Amino acid sequence: MLNIAICGASGYTGVELLRILALHPNVRVTAVTSERSAGKKVTALFPHLGMYSNLEYEPLDREKLLKKADLFFLALPHGASQEAVNFFFQEKKMVVDLSADYRLADESTYRQWYGLEHTYIPALRKAVYGLPEIYRKRIKKARLIANPGCYPTSAILGLMPALKNRILDTAHIVIDSKSGTSGAGRKADLAVSFCEVNEGFKAYGLGVHRHTPEIEQELSGLAGRKITVNFTPHLLPVDRGILTTIYAPLAKKISPEKVLGMYQKAYKSEPFVKVLTPGALPNIKNVRGTNFCHIGLKLVERTNTLIIVSAIDNLVKGASGQAVHNMNLMMGFSETEGLRNMALFP
Amino acid sequence: MLNIAICGASGYTGVELLRILALHPNVRVTAVTSERSAGKKVTALFPHLGMYSNLEYEPLDREKLLKKADLFFLALPHGASQEAVNFFFQEKKMVVDLSADYRLADESTYRQWYGLEHTYIPALRKAVYGLPEIYRKRIKKARLIANPGCYPTSAILGLMPALKNRILDTAHIVIDSKSGTSGAGRKADLAVSFCEVNEGFKAYGLGVHRHTPEIEQELSGLAGRKITVNFTPHLLPVDRGILTTIYAPLAKKISPEKVLGMYQKAYKSEPFVKVLTPGALPNIKNVRGTNFCHIGLKLVERTNTLIIVSAIDNLVKGASGQAVHNMNLMMGFSETEGLRNMALFP
Amino acid sequence: MLNIAICGASGYTGVELLRILALHPNVRVTAVTSERSAGKKVTALFPHLGMYSNLEYEPLDREKLLKKADLFFLALPHGASQEAVNFFFQEKKMVVDLSADYRLADESTYRQWYGLEHTYIPALRKAVYGLPEIYRKRIKKARLIANPGCYPTSAILGLMPALKNRILDTAHIVIDSKSGTSGAGRKADLAVSFCEVNEGFKAYGLGVHRHTPEIEQELSGLAGRKITVNFTPHLLPVDRGILTTIYAPLAKKISPEKVLGMYQKAYKSEPFVKVLTPGALPNIKNVRGTNFCHIGLKLVERTNTLIIVSAIDNLVKGASGQAVHNMNLMMGFSETEGLRNMALFP
Amino acid sequence: MLNIAICGASGYTGVELLRILALHPNVRVTAVTSERSAGKKVTALFPHLGMYSNLEYEPLDREKLLKKADLFFLALPHGASQEAVNFFFQEKKMVVDLSADYRLADESTYRQWYGLEHTYIPALRKAVYGLPEIYRKRIKKARLIANPGCYPTSAILGLMPALKNRILDTAHIVIDSKSGTSGAGRKADLAVSFCEVNEGFKAYGLGVHRHTPEIEQELSGLAGRKITVNFTPHLLPVDRGILTTIYAPLAKKISPEKVLGMYQKAYKSEPFVKVLTPGALPNIKNVRGTNFCHIGLKLVERTNTLIIVSAIDNLVKGASGQAVHNMNLMMGFSETEGLRNMALFP
Repeated sequence: MLNIAICGASGYTGVELLRILALHPNVRVTAVTSERSAGKKVTALFPHLGMYSNLEYEPLDREKLLKKADLFFLALPHGASQEAVNFFFQEKKMVVDLSADYRLADESTYRQWYGLEHTYIPALRKAVYGLPEIYRKRIKKARLIANPGCYPTSAILGLMPALKNRILDTAHIVIDSKSGTSGAGRKADLAVSFCEVNEGFKAYGLGVHRHTPEIEQELSGLAGRKITVNFTPHLLPVDRGILTTIYAPLAKKISPEKVLGMYQKAYKSEPFVKVLTPGALPNIKNVRGTNFCHIGLKLVERTNTLIIVSAIDNLVKGASGQAVHNMNLMMGFSETEGLRNMALFP
Repeated sequence: MLNIAICGASGYTGVELLRILALHPNVRVTAVTSERSAGKKVTALFPHLGMYSNLEYEPLDREKLLKKADLFFLALPHGASQEAVNFFFQEKKMVVDLSADYRLADESTYRQWYGLEHTYIPALRKAVYGLPEIYRKRIKKARLIANPGCYPTSAILGLMPALKNRILDTAHIVIDSKSGTSGAGRKADLAVSFCEVNEGFKAYGLGVHRHTPEIEQELSGLAGRKITVNFTPHLLPVDRGILTTIYAPLAKKISPEKVLGMYQKAYKSEPFVKVLTPGALPNIKNVRGTNFCHIGLKLVERTNTLIIVSAIDNLVKGASGQAVHNMNLMMGFSETEGLRNMALFP
Repeated sequence: MLNIAICGASGYTGVELLRILALHPNVRVTAVTSERSAGKKVTALFPHLGMYSNLEYEPLDREKLLKKADLFFLALPHGASQEAVNFFFQEKKMVVDLSADYRLADESTYRQWYGLEHTYIPALRKAVYGLPEIYRKRIKKARLIANPGCYPTSAILGLMPALKNRILDTAHIVIDSKSGTSGAGRKADLAVSFCEVNEGFKAYGLGVHRHTPEIEQELSGLAGRKITVNFTPHLLPVDRGILTTIYAPLAKKISPEKVLGMYQKAYKSEPFVKVLTPGALPNIKNVRGTNFCHIGLKLVERTNTLIIVSAIDNLVKGASGQAVHNMNLMMGFSETEGLRNMALFP
Repeated sequence: MLNIAICGASGYTGVELLRILALHPNVRVTAVTSERSAGKKVTALFPHLGMYSNLEYEPLDREKLLKKADLFFLALPHGASQEAVNFFFQEKKMVVDLSADYRLADESTYRQWYGLEHTYIPALRKAVYGLPEIYRKRIKKARLIANPGCYPTSAILGLMPALKNRILDTAHIVIDSKSGTSGAGRKADLAVSFCEVNEGFKAYGLGVHRHTPEIEQELSGLAGRKITVNFTPHLLPVDRGILTTIYAPLAKKISPEKVLGMYQKAYKSEPFVKVLTPGALPNIKNVRGTNFCHIGLKLVERTNTLIIVSAIDNLVKGASGQAVHNMNLMMGFSETEGLRNMALFP
């Protein structure tokens, strides 16, 4: 049994880790931290987590935690994560960081978009971007995983086969994403109060959202040249789910069948990516509570554009599920362990 | 591996059975029927049920089905279920009937509320009402289970300890229930279309809902005398969940601690019933997707009334989860097999 | 043109007053107060209130406000309202208080339920409970209106004809209410954040909700004797609306037609109360955004109980609309001025 | 008083016309048609339309209707509208057609996208596309208005100033729209049932949605050359509202201030279009129930793209409100009559 600590376990991603790990046969959660809720039982905050009736939140005391766990999930705010990740990594622990702190390989890009200096460059150099569909081999050998952002996961998986096959004119890619409200985190904030969000819909962060450089880093890697994209997030009045609609102009004429073939081939061995049959389109409701990414394709010949729609659950494939997938790979567990459930529908 | 057929598997309870059974290690779903969708793949209708990519709907051909399965879940409309249940039961199959046809022990009550004659009295006499918290012993030996209705499950579990302990004045019990829209079934019907239900809330079936006699049958059994109740269902603009608020006048003064003790004692060995600590109250969101029933209690001394609030997921504890629980008991599987997941929150 | 000030105009009831008054031909809003938002434009907080592009929030400076307006709507928290109401009332202004401070005629009841001393008894004695269907005549002559609570409005209107006609056994009345989330106010609070409320449903305040004594005060007045009730509020995942289901045991046998007749007679001249035809039941969606109260009736002969269902919009008939109705009566404007719009459906 | 008939008055746009016209001082609705509901009272279907308690649905009998009304709103399905529009137009009635039948000036485009022949070309030639912000002068003199589609309204208003000022590279315009479910109409259809839509989100009609040629027709007109766009609609789990996010590459460098100035100038006299201040972005919740279009702008210098976000209520500015606006213009009524209410928020 692998002993696990979750740092920052009273937010939605932390709670989602608890939900997933509860049914994982190879692990045991031995510590959960929360400054705000230290001293409280997990079940006092979350009555639905009955299986953890003996678990109590504690402050993030690193030395104490070192003795309690061998693998650390960190679900801390960006900035706060930098130092904690480095500490556990230096102490030879396995680390999966769900923050953005170790995702951008180039520290100057990090500085530019996050307004922070990265002060742990050696650890940063060791971090592997935890998208198994691209980096599975490296993840298996890694000790420090930078778990991808939710929007980037949906965008990158949507574009990967097309970019690798060099069929796109990469100058005008548009990525229009819509996320459920849990993506904003668990907090007392008028902007995410029910009456403000419900029956509403809006865009936010136009041109400045911090997932933009993360998306561009990975797309550029796949394409073999620098790509700049227009990325716009929106806030959906649902709990969970990201649907990303991608407009990718084609570099030349190509048949829909050929494009579909590329996608099917790219993902045929992937346990969590499903390319839908022609005509079918993803719905966030079909992946809710699961680690799946559904991808639908439409080649619009009138405009010579490939429209790609991808759907994930932002808290699972977009965060905690992918983190567990990464853990499974790092530890040599069955890849799909803990992640085999199907969507809660309706 | 137990071979299982689900008759009526394109509705929400059928689909929920598929979701739950997919992770059950002792069973295999070998047949699913649907007249409307015969010939179609399960995944064509429900893309989220990826694990059943080889399963196809077929018409309900009894003779064919006999060879395919040993245990039958029937999720057919009432009336339609009577004959099919009897057939599989006579053929020595294990049967869990999710319809109302075998729930009322008294055929005249059935006739009165459902407007139908019951024509399979011998099978009716053998049917066991599948509420494990009351009938566990009989369920273990049964071959035909009448799986309880969703509203009755929430009402009966809420009242059982109080009735058994004879602390209520049973003349004025009020049961006010609120159910998510999946309780209305999966169908093309203006009354359950999004724009009619969303941002709305209403009562329905006042004084005439067919779950009333089922509730009264079981409450009367628990109390040892005939009980008549006011029961009102309401339609909630959510997918899943039933919250039932019960007003039970007390026969005499009693302390809240004593009442709480009765409830804790009654349910302490029950894997799926959780009595909340004083002050805490159930929320349907905390049981979503699970087989749990959460119960909150408040003794209002001003009015000498015990107010009981219970919450279940109408599709799980109120239907398919309870059905699997019953199967587990009938087959000698671990009671909680397939039902250990925690609520999807948020 | 009547000059109007709204004290506490950045909450949902304040904003709703602005929406309604914008189309009222006899009034002009000349001042809005908000401590938090003083100095900000109304349209900076609420882009939908375009008609008020010149209006700015100011702190509640009483002397300044005196010169600006002749009628004051106060939408302040209870406790805070006591003194402000008294001030404007003593200064001979017309006052409509939307808080609870002047609703309970008996100051000891106020002390008991609100934990506060009432220090303006002379003003309290002059206050008229602003439910036009009961107190129209007194409202027309009043200068200080205690605008009713949202739950009480729905409960009292539902029971009035039955109580006045003395057909009920008043010992076991149950009032089960469900309210939209705007009833909790506009605030940064985890408990009302989208992901906590959406797809959820719960009861709260069992046995201790402060609207209970207000309901009992008015029901007792109507019945001519002291009535105690069980009242339970619930939180609905919708923006607006209260549906109240009332269980009222009958004192003796009476026909449904006779009961319906009593209700129709009681409300036939009321512009905002609509008694539905037999079989029809209210839906909060049908009164959304309006000052209407819809009432549905069902006499259940099996249990000799009259079940009454009433629906209002908590922000309109349950708060700001009723406040404007009261103003219309006080000022001699047409009763329905500003309140003639029909529900936004869907 | 202008006598008005609404043909097809039991759908959401018909009902919305009734809601708006109820408070319009210059008109009287004298006839409403519905084949399905002929003989039923309006209030039997829609209890919230209390003001129409004497109005009854009748079949669409043209000769009868001719005597009853002088202006006809037609909210019939496309195809069915062609002939009816022509009839009333030939009979010298004023006609506002809410269907798509008279929107496309080029009948071959209509044939291509709708699969139908247009058989009333003379009437088609007389029809004016009813977007007041472009065609106000012509609308004032028209007798036949082709009321714009909901998606086109949001897209065209978002792009008009940029196109007229020739600042765009029009080769790669992307229009990503998200609509509330009322856009799908009022019908019994599993695809729009609550449990399928709620907590879900999906794209549909990729590359083939029939509003595409309508958008392209108007954008081409504004730009003075043929424009082809990628347009994708999505289904939002809300009742009302369209948010359209437009990605418009710039032809050359231009400052954000200059772009904002163009938009402010273009719409400064428009009663229903509001250009938001820099940094602010539209939310469908802020225009709900109103005839407003809110427009937010962001010039992303990194990608030299103008991102435009527009929000309307699909049933008001996207259908019935715009229809009434057109009527006001045709009849010489005050332009904003019946349309001055502010959004229902929350």
